[in-house]
Amino acid sequence: MAPFSTISEFKTLLANAPEADDDATAGARRRNAQLTKPPGALGRLEELAIWYAGWRGSDSPAIDAPQIVVFAGNHGVCAQGVSAFPPEVTVQMVANFEHGGAAINQLAKTFGATMHVHALELDRPTADFTQSPAMSEAEFIAALRTGWGAVNPAADLLVPGEMGIGNTTVAAAVGAALFGGIGADWVGRGTGVDDAGLANKARVVDAGLARHASREPLEVLRCLGGRELAAMAGAIAAARAHRIPVILDGFICTAAAAVLEKTRAGALDHCVAGHLSAEGAHGRMLDSLDKVPLLSLGLCLGEGSGGAAAIGVLKAAVACHSGMATFAEAGVSDG
Amino acid sequence: MAPFSTISEFKTLLANAPEADDDATAGARRRNAQLTKPPGALGRLEELAIWYAGWRGSDSPAIDAPQIVVFAGNHGVCAQGVSAFPPEVTVQMVANFEHGGAAINQLAKTFGATMHVHALELDRPTADFTQSPAMSEAEFIAALRTGWGAVNPAADLLVPGEMGIGNTTVAAAVGAALFGGIGADWVGRGTGVDDAGLANKARVVDAGLARHASREPLEVLRCLGGRELAAMAGAIAAARAHRIPVILDGFICTAAAAVLEKTRAGALDHCVAGHLSAEGAHGRMLDSLDKVPLLSLGLCLGEGSGGAAAIGVLKAAVACHSGMATFAEAGVSDG
Repeated sequence: MAPFSTISEFKTLLANAPEADDDATAGARRRNAQLTKPPGALGRLEELAIWYAGWRGSDSPAIDAPQIVVFAGNHGVCAQGVSAFPPEVTVQMVANFEHGGAAINQLAKTFGATMHVHALELDRPTADFTQSPAMSEAEFIAALRTGWGAVNPAADLLVPGEMGIGNTTVAAAVGAALFGGIGADWVGRGTGVDDAGLANKARVVDAGLARHASREPLEVLRCLGGRELAAMAGAIAAARAHRIPVILDGFICTAAAAVLEKTRAGALDHCVAGHLSAEGAHGRMLDSLDKVPLLSLGLCLGEGSGGAAAIGVLKAAVACHSGMATFAEAGVSDG
Repeated sequence: MAPFSTISEFKTLLANAPEADDDATAGARRRNAQLTKPPGALGRLEELAIWYAGWRGSDSPAIDAPQIVVFAGNHGVCAQGVSAFPPEVTVQMVANFEHGGAAINQLAKTFGATMHVHALELDRPTADFTQSPAMSEAEFIAALRTGWGAVNPAADLLVPGEMGIGNTTVAAAVGAALFGGIGADWVGRGTGVDDAGLANKARVVDAGLARHASREPLEVLRCLGGRELAAMAGAIAAARAHRIPVILDGFICTAAAAVLEKTRAGALDHCVAGHLSAEGAHGRMLDSLDKVPLLSLGLCLGEGSGGAAAIGVLKAAVACHSGMATFAEAGVSDG
């Protein structure tokens, strides 16, 4: 059960979230310096392993139980014709997740992750944000709580993912409201809209920005976001509470995460960016959050796929860190 | 056993190397277009899977048996003071590989790869290339043959790696001889030389270039290369003969591979670049070979580590391609 039932309680949890364990971080840094390799030769894998060690509170941790959680939501703003796919695809894709047929299922298998899917009231889309707030406060809190509760406290890595026809428009609106700019700065091709579709998305985002004046981050998420974005934010906050490191997925996941960072600076210190999405403004959003993506392979699928694809990189980093011999153990001269 | 015993026979093998299976490539492309995702949404993972399918001759292949082969050699040019580590580290690291303590061992375990180590006459370094050819023709062919024979014909993916104190200088010399330029254009910090060490490496490469005038690629590898580079070239050629796709590692592996491409254009069509090394001129060498690295994480360790770290990316690509449901199978509307 989520330990909050109001926005204010959720904010208090964020404010009091645990930090990485400095002793474990320092111990991991010492261990790294003794491993049988030239200093720095594993590049970013070294800093990744040390970061992971700090959050897990162990100077030589392991990744044994990664969890992928996919949240699905539907969006009233689809009435504005923002997607190349019809909204019924959301529920069809949830069935595909449940039957193991989607990309994220194959990635979960490849990297030994468990996968859970939460369909969030797909038959009751959020309101069209050009007309009214996407969610009532009760709906918003319910979605945050679902996200929080979806995280297995025994997991040692979390990848949040999403599915929701129309949600690149939603994420663009959230991005613009959090970071500034107009619709055209933040929209992208999504699942494949044409130039007219892109212009329409920009218009729809601008209409949402005009209607919802508050720039308080959680209000932005409630008024312009969607249930799956709120659930991802809840899950990322829960992971922090459990000191579970997170690999962020692409544009939509990062928009949801950014709400937490804007609410409390440092709220994403337990998160690494899994990849740079091909979707429009993802790179700019990552820059604003000071996150450097692990992969840059042109993905723009969602589902958590870019985050899951990066599990292998983090596993590689942690395996090298915790499994390698030291110079002394191996009898290797250290230069 | 390697099916050649002269350079000329090796060249004939390269000239007659098999190509990817066009039917399998076309079948994989058709399959990719039907999978439950927007067109192109898996970005580079899609082209990777199609490329892999073509080489394996199946429109929905699997990666079940990746093989990592690490070759170790010692270098007479170490007498010129080109490395921050003493040459005895090569044999010490081979023991570390054999005892499972090196980075590459952890990466092999992480991605389910077998790993083999071949120490190539470590007590008999190549000649100092500033004085004479690094290898006699017999020595060179022996190393090529060892590399060829090290590849398991039943493997479905090969990652060649190397260990050899001094071999970034060797690879720089090979790079300069193959692609043009002077020592300073091609040398890097290796295991961590300082500015004076860097200048010395450039001087040593220039001396090697001045002594060995032939720019015939296999002669370059014999005169300026090393046994582990020749073995990697032999292994990459063997993989091609067996239609085993290859993930190239960093600067030294790529220099060895480049010899094949310069000998016969297209000889590396079955290879993908695993990563962009932090070592000096690797990026330029990859550009010249028209290879875009899968990862860019600042590694510069060798051992095959950057190639092995990328196994996860290729596994992810192939798993999505072969495991995902089609729109028809999943009952998902395709836009």
